[in-house]
Amino acid sequence: MLAEDTIPPQREAPPDDPRYRAAFEAIDADPNQRLIAAELCGRVVGTMQLSFLPGLSFCGSWRGLIEAVRIAPDLRGQRLGEQMILWAVDQCRARDCKLVQLTSSASRTAAHRFYARLGFVQSHVGMKLHLRD
Amino acid sequence: MLAEDTIPPQREAPPDDPRYRAAFEAIDADPNQRLIAAELCGRVVGTMQLSFLPGLSFCGSWRGLIEAVRIAPDLRGQRLGEQMILWAVDQCRARDCKLVQLTSSASRTAAHRFYARLGFVQSHVGMKLHLRD
Repeated sequence: MLAEDTIPPQREAPPDDPRYRAAFEAIDADPNQRLIAAELCGRVVGTMQLSFLPGLSFCGSWRGLIEAVRIAPDLRGQRLGEQMILWAVDQCRARDCKLVQLTSSASRTAAHRFYARLGFVQSHVGMKLHLRD
Repeated sequence: MLAEDTIPPQREAPPDDPRYRAAFEAIDADPNQRLIAAELCGRVVGTMQLSFLPGLSFCGSWRGLIEAVRIAPDLRGQRLGEQMILWAVDQCRARDCKLVQLTSSASRTAAHRFYARLGFVQSHVGMKLHLRD
């Protein structure tokens, strides 16, 4: 799914690249990082990363950060994404997060509507600085 | 600075609220979280939080996340913020991050121009879902 669904395309390496294994291990070792695989009938149909971030703002509240949401291309439009995001929001509630945040590519207006339907408010701009190719 | 500079105002508790101490300890205990205090002539003049996030995207790259950037109100316009952000970017380079990301309130257009001058690209929308007051 990562290889199929990237902007720009071809930004990823073959799946057996050892850098993916190292990244997986870093995520797995950190109790504030969760890599989620949604399974349907034994098939992985969606993935996302959920991070729990401590912070001083809002009286020292934790916040949830959703990144890298991906759904199998042939299963889009079936509300799997909605189930995944609502599940992630529940996880954030269970960790007593004050809020859940995410960024979405400016061009993905359908995604913005999707998140807005789930209660997310487009209150911020998301800025990125790439440090290397 | 946190109490002086919040949207909405009055969202924070008195500085000795024990929740801030607990949050500080959670940040301090996590090697991927850094709370930065910029000092000038013995005075804390700026603060920010810098998070290092592992991830699978971009061949398993780490990314830096800048949050909660605050500058003492009487010292704005003196490029302290620029020095702080450039320092944070250097820290992200030193950790071999692929990119640095942040969100900024949609209404803070001067902040967007500030980050754009430092090379950040407004490529995303930032969405938040508040879970409790």
